[in-house]
Amino acid sequence: MTYFGLYALQHRGQESSGIVTSTGTSIHEYKGMGLVSEVFDERTLNRLPGRTAIGHVRYSTTGSSIAKNAQPFVVTHGNRTLAIGHNGNLTNARQLRRDLERRGSIFQTTMDSEVIVHLLARNLQAGGIEEALVTAVSQIEGAYSCTLMTEDKLIAFRDPQGFRPLCLGMLNGGYVIASETCALDLVDAQYLRDIEPGEILIIDDNGLKSLNPFPECRRSFCIFEYIYFARPDSNIYGQNVYSVRKRLGAQLAKEYPIEADFVMPFPDSGNYAALGYCQGLGIPLEMGVIRNHYVGRTFIEPTQSMRDFGVKVKLNPVRDILNQKRVVIVEDSIIRGTTSKMRIKALREAGAKEVHMVVSCPPHRYPCYYGIDFSTKGELIACQHSVGEVQSYIGLDSLGYLSLSGMLDSTGYENDAFCLACFNGKYPVKPPDDISKLCLEQ
Amino acid sequence: MTYFGLYALQHRGQESSGIVTSTGTSIHEYKGMGLVSEVFDERTLNRLPGRTAIGHVRYSTTGSSIAKNAQPFVVTHGNRTLAIGHNGNLTNARQLRRDLERRGSIFQTTMDSEVIVHLLARNLQAGGIEEALVTAVSQIEGAYSCTLMTEDKLIAFRDPQGFRPLCLGMLNGGYVIASETCALDLVDAQYLRDIEPGEILIIDDNGLKSLNPFPECRRSFCIFEYIYFARPDSNIYGQNVYSVRKRLGAQLAKEYPIEADFVMPFPDSGNYAALGYCQGLGIPLEMGVIRNHYVGRTFIEPTQSMRDFGVKVKLNPVRDILNQKRVVIVEDSIIRGTTSKMRIKALREAGAKEVHMVVSCPPHRYPCYYGIDFSTKGELIACQHSVGEVQSYIGLDSLGYLSLSGMLDSTGYENDAFCLACFNGKYPVKPPDDISKLCLEQ
Amino acid sequence: MTYFGLYALQHRGQESSGIVTSTGTSIHEYKGMGLVSEVFDERTLNRLPGRTAIGHVRYSTTGSSIAKNAQPFVVTHGNRTLAIGHNGNLTNARQLRRDLERRGSIFQTTMDSEVIVHLLARNLQAGGIEEALVTAVSQIEGAYSCTLMTEDKLIAFRDPQGFRPLCLGMLNGGYVIASETCALDLVDAQYLRDIEPGEILIIDDNGLKSLNPFPECRRSFCIFEYIYFARPDSNIYGQNVYSVRKRLGAQLAKEYPIEADFVMPFPDSGNYAALGYCQGLGIPLEMGVIRNHYVGRTFIEPTQSMRDFGVKVKLNPVRDILNQKRVVIVEDSIIRGTTSKMRIKALREAGAKEVHMVVSCPPHRYPCYYGIDFSTKGELIACQHSVGEVQSYIGLDSLGYLSLSGMLDSTGYENDAFCLACFNGKYPVKPPDDISKLCLEQ
Amino acid sequence: MTYFGLYALQHRGQESSGIVTSTGTSIHEYKGMGLVSEVFDERTLNRLPGRTAIGHVRYSTTGSSIAKNAQPFVVTHGNRTLAIGHNGNLTNARQLRRDLERRGSIFQTTMDSEVIVHLLARNLQAGGIEEALVTAVSQIEGAYSCTLMTEDKLIAFRDPQGFRPLCLGMLNGGYVIASETCALDLVDAQYLRDIEPGEILIIDDNGLKSLNPFPECRRSFCIFEYIYFARPDSNIYGQNVYSVRKRLGAQLAKEYPIEADFVMPFPDSGNYAALGYCQGLGIPLEMGVIRNHYVGRTFIEPTQSMRDFGVKVKLNPVRDILNQKRVVIVEDSIIRGTTSKMRIKALREAGAKEVHMVVSCPPHRYPCYYGIDFSTKGELIACQHSVGEVQSYIGLDSLGYLSLSGMLDSTGYENDAFCLACFNGKYPVKPPDDISKLCLEQ
Repeated sequence: MTYFGLYALQHRGQESSGIVTSTGTSIHEYKGMGLVSEVFDERTLNRLPGRTAIGHVRYSTTGSSIAKNAQPFVVTHGNRTLAIGHNGNLTNARQLRRDLERRGSIFQTTMDSEVIVHLLARNLQAGGIEEALVTAVSQIEGAYSCTLMTEDKLIAFRDPQGFRPLCLGMLNGGYVIASETCALDLVDAQYLRDIEPGEILIIDDNGLKSLNPFPECRRSFCIFEYIYFARPDSNIYGQNVYSVRKRLGAQLAKEYPIEADFVMPFPDSGNYAALGYCQGLGIPLEMGVIRNHYVGRTFIEPTQSMRDFGVKVKLNPVRDILNQKRVVIVEDSIIRGTTSKMRIKALREAGAKEVHMVVSCPPHRYPCYYGIDFSTKGELIACQHSVGEVQSYIGLDSLGYLSLSGMLDSTGYENDAFCLACFNGKYPVKPPDDISKLCLEQ
Repeated sequence: MTYFGLYALQHRGQESSGIVTSTGTSIHEYKGMGLVSEVFDERTLNRLPGRTAIGHVRYSTTGSSIAKNAQPFVVTHGNRTLAIGHNGNLTNARQLRRDLERRGSIFQTTMDSEVIVHLLARNLQAGGIEEALVTAVSQIEGAYSCTLMTEDKLIAFRDPQGFRPLCLGMLNGGYVIASETCALDLVDAQYLRDIEPGEILIIDDNGLKSLNPFPECRRSFCIFEYIYFARPDSNIYGQNVYSVRKRLGAQLAKEYPIEADFVMPFPDSGNYAALGYCQGLGIPLEMGVIRNHYVGRTFIEPTQSMRDFGVKVKLNPVRDILNQKRVVIVEDSIIRGTTSKMRIKALREAGAKEVHMVVSCPPHRYPCYYGIDFSTKGELIACQHSVGEVQSYIGLDSLGYLSLSGMLDSTGYENDAFCLACFNGKYPVKPPDDISKLCLEQ
Repeated sequence: MTYFGLYALQHRGQESSGIVTSTGTSIHEYKGMGLVSEVFDERTLNRLPGRTAIGHVRYSTTGSSIAKNAQPFVVTHGNRTLAIGHNGNLTNARQLRRDLERRGSIFQTTMDSEVIVHLLARNLQAGGIEEALVTAVSQIEGAYSCTLMTEDKLIAFRDPQGFRPLCLGMLNGGYVIASETCALDLVDAQYLRDIEPGEILIIDDNGLKSLNPFPECRRSFCIFEYIYFARPDSNIYGQNVYSVRKRLGAQLAKEYPIEADFVMPFPDSGNYAALGYCQGLGIPLEMGVIRNHYVGRTFIEPTQSMRDFGVKVKLNPVRDILNQKRVVIVEDSIIRGTTSKMRIKALREAGAKEVHMVVSCPPHRYPCYYGIDFSTKGELIACQHSVGEVQSYIGLDSLGYLSLSGMLDSTGYENDAFCLACFNGKYPVKPPDDISKLCLEQ
Repeated sequence: MTYFGLYALQHRGQESSGIVTSTGTSIHEYKGMGLVSEVFDERTLNRLPGRTAIGHVRYSTTGSSIAKNAQPFVVTHGNRTLAIGHNGNLTNARQLRRDLERRGSIFQTTMDSEVIVHLLARNLQAGGIEEALVTAVSQIEGAYSCTLMTEDKLIAFRDPQGFRPLCLGMLNGGYVIASETCALDLVDAQYLRDIEPGEILIIDDNGLKSLNPFPECRRSFCIFEYIYFARPDSNIYGQNVYSVRKRLGAQLAKEYPIEADFVMPFPDSGNYAALGYCQGLGIPLEMGVIRNHYVGRTFIEPTQSMRDFGVKVKLNPVRDILNQKRVVIVEDSIIRGTTSKMRIKALREAGAKEVHMVVSCPPHRYPCYYGIDFSTKGELIACQHSVGEVQSYIGLDSLGYLSLSGMLDSTGYENDAFCLACFNGKYPVKPPDDISKLCLEQ
């Protein structure tokens, strides 16, 4: 079941996959580089007996892209084995690590997640797991939606801001934790509720126990989960992602109505906003480019050479559809702009007469330190360039970004529920000290 | 370049991949089970020097799904090395093999394609490669679109009926042969023309030479390439596949207009017919199910257990979109009906109020012996059941198949250009002797 | 049991290992590059069910050192599967292959052994396996000790000269065929008799059947099996190899008595002759160099770079034993002399005052075409140099080769029983036509 | 060079192999399960750039036989990377580990060696590497001959008793550390001196620096290195191992002269004592059993099933040599007696009339806690049985063990230089607390 759940969540990380199980007395693990389908087969799954399990698909935002950094991360300490899976980024990991090393701890990996385990280990001496958890979690800052497993407990905890999603479901009388509801759907589990921001939820033979050690604080849901990251069939922060995206597209239709022969997405990034946009304007939808299903997702791949290959092989323009046509592309976001530039060029070579683009969020101007990786691997084109310059760089006839207020209205949420740092630079949790200051200081 | 070409053609076979190159004096090969992206990497490609190359992605319709059966198939005979890649199925392979073995030939594989090489070898003694080719090709029957490479020649040949597509392109003054034009597009080659049915085309330092040893005969293009098999961005038999599919959908809208809240395909099988259908009727298109991009294509996988897993994990219904809605599914074909049944069940569980289905071709009633694998692995549901029974089995509120004449009209071709055997049982080339007679005799 | 037998015969080939089994109705095979211990484990052995089996360890004297050339070689022809294991070299393989290819046969490998299977296949059309065997075997020339397995028969055959050994044993009422008796010992089988030169022995449910299609001809046992190749604990051609080697050493003591502090072999090549020599003269034996047991046998490795590494790491001189001593090395043979030169240099660097060498056979002056690989991989130093020149090249104080008559006397056999071609150039079977004539013409 | 050194020391551990290199600024590692020749090839060695390196071959006496436990063990701590290779066994590792875990340390492996690194890490906070080393080393007890590498230093240290050997050599102006001198020989390094018991030797750009933090204490060299473990071509504790073994054999000849037809070792365990014994008595030496060189060393393999296979396939008796003969086996030691029993049985089945055995050390009655693994894997037969019972169990006509005083005299050393615990139960360093008391209490 964990294996199926990871399949449903594969879009959240394609670099490595792992499952750790507990029989109640012993812990078993299997991890590897690659997709769930590449790492696991019947033989390896059979070697994972147990009554509880946690799994993880990794998308490296900190720590190298190497096998040692695959999660769940397992350590044996004293007579106890702990396994942790972490979604998000700690902002004070480097400092905590420095402190721990100064006190003699030796780290096995370069992942921020390992800090949590060391804090737990130090605090486990003094008392039980609950106290240790509260003490450890109080020391870490940033984004973390975590599952933690001991031989006899399954624990979930989420940072007080609630950057990343984390939900609780029920199946056959047991509990299921997942980043998104689409994983519950696949295993036929029933959605119960979200793990609350700041909540520590402990599941064992005594049932559920919920700790809330943090003072109430402002929510900072990641709005980019709605725009791009989450699966459209998931419900995140209480809203269906597909529906939110359609509303973003409908709002775009109001803000940027364009006279064109047809609307198209680059599959599958802007699909749902495109539906909202074309239905809003009454222009037909066409699939002007065909996706090769045997290549992976552009944005998430870790090395430059793989990405360039992906752009070239992934989408083929259909000359017979595009020739002499005026086209509006609905895109979910523009990060570096290089991929868009290459795609627009290909559309024009295939005969498109006009190419416009509307984007279902405002310009990305600031890096994210909470788990979305457009901070280090590429420059944000909108950070240093005006909308006009971006339009010209990409080679568009026109370019329209959704307004911040239009975006917030489409979510159906209060405005102060979200982290909007990547758009407005207001970071709800202090970023790491020693990052490059380039964009922050503008 | 061959590697990229295979990427573009990956939909035609996912079981094994191979490339064979020639430097002019020596032949190098690399093959493996799996997708192009799994079999090849920089290191293996670097071990394939050469100035000419042929590649192949295999979809096993005859011969076992084992490494030895990967193509291109390479043999050394005398001082000459031959490599062959074969798309299609020979209908008299078993008999030819029996004859050859009786005369002392030893076969290395269980593939029908190996027969061609043995016939060539026998005839190469008597004369040159051209004579040997003509003699060999005259003995084989069925569907074959082949590339053949010797140290100094690249040869393409196609059966006189032209069952499977095969086209010729040009790039930087050199020639490129491919099953579909989408492979030419990817490598920026210019489409020149199709290899003609019955043509043997020889490319060497002297340029192109075309042989046409067969008497003129009726064409029998596989219409299922248009409906399902080929990529929408390819032009096949002179028509753009996407456009043909849209016309099939538009024709469906005329034949089966249904009052519904929205139209949806099961991505990506009926995507383009769905566009034609919804535009024809003015009903909105929605993506009622979300495809998980990390799982492969259902139809083409060789083992039952993988297929069942694929059905379960591949498409997730979006409850918020489907709830209380009347839905029309546009599907390209129904083979066994089991997958559709499971999907419709899932739609209803997600809340759909009415579920209708329209299919962009007539019922499949007869097996194919020319390279499409719905003959042996599954029973054709329409072979033994009426449309009403199929509707009821799948669990639909209504079911409409496109008419034969409607389908033919949509192709823009003369009616007698196609093999329609899977619909009407009229086999243009005699099927193998010893197949089960089940459906043929009805 | 076949697996254990191969272990016992590993010294005859270290390049690849394979086992093929038959259940009576189906054939199963597993082969790989490397030692028996590297290729097989419990899992792979479990996949080899059956009641009969043949195995092979390969030492490439013809055909490349690649996986495809591993034996037993298995082909399916008509409804029959044949597996063959071949020890020796055919001298007319190239010509037979040319003829077969001219008649349309396609070869899968570059091994001479494949010719036998093709001849069998051609003749199996006309009649039964016995007739086919007789006809096939009559066409091949050179050295061959073969095992052949069909679904229901185990067959052994040996060339009329009997170049290579082949013996028959019995175990639990069943029959065992092996190259050397040490394989029978390991599996506790009882030695019955040698397969006779020219004999075709067929074992099936009817028991043993022996065919002798050849006219009587002069024996040509390979004397180098006694001197170097066979295991000392085997009985070959009716004599114990250890005892023969000791007698060769004792004869050396008569022909070349040397005044020295001690006698030593380079382990393990001259061990047994050294025992004969030191006991003959009453000089103590010491182990002046220590063998590293984690490196393989020099002579048999296929690539140059591996051999040089082997020389450097394999034998370490013991300074405390050698210092200021007069030493006699007993060696079984000198092929290229390069290894000896390096070893003698190392002995002198470790302090040896005098280094003499006696060799338990005459100088090797001619290449072997019957299965011992000192023909192609290195020049025979004695082919172009006198004994004095060899002594000087290697850096010895004296060098004594055993006389031809002394060697023959030590075997306890009639003089005309052996192939002595490597010493005297008299080839009992015509060598291949197109070999380099360098040494033959001197 | 490290690779060659490991080859020379392969007899000290066959379970896993590893090399770690330093370029002066970065550390590179490669480790794997298996022999040096299995783990390393040109490609993996090329990935190990550097100017200093340490390597290790592991023989698991504590910690499981798994990949994670391969050495050298590398950790990154703060900005510093440490790599350690450890020969020997710590006797207080479990207690130290418990203490460290109580203070929050998390261990990555189950090896005692990891404790040393954690102690170093804790002490590195307070001061430099030298102080940290002295503090860490002062806390550990038992047997340790270690190499430690940082980016810019190569460090060797040895326990104050000097249980295991460790020597220093020089090559091309650089320094080489190795367990035995045979590794220096192989790389043409010059032996300088032993690392002294209790010495910490630091090598960096400033040359050698020697620390001696321990008070003088009684030496406890492992005498079993002389008898069995070390390579005969090494000089250990200032004596040549081969010569010591010959003297042990000569002493046996005095203590147990036996009238026999010949003397034989089981290769290669008693080879050198056998030479001393046969020369002392003037009886001939024969090789009554032939070793199959393609199987590994019995004693050192970690699993029971492999050992039993090894016994069966490894040594084949030569019937022609043994038949009707009176034989004396010279053996270096008897641990469990099961292997000897099987071998003697095989000799008798091959026809031996009388079989006597003399052993070049006294009976093994007590387990070793300092790095020789006859403590846990098998019962010591002499611990619970008299010499007569052992003789009878093995099936000998007579059995003679060398006397303790005879053994000590043969070493040429003062009597109080050695650890004799395995013979007399006097443990120079307190054994671990929680071992089974079985033998100690008798």
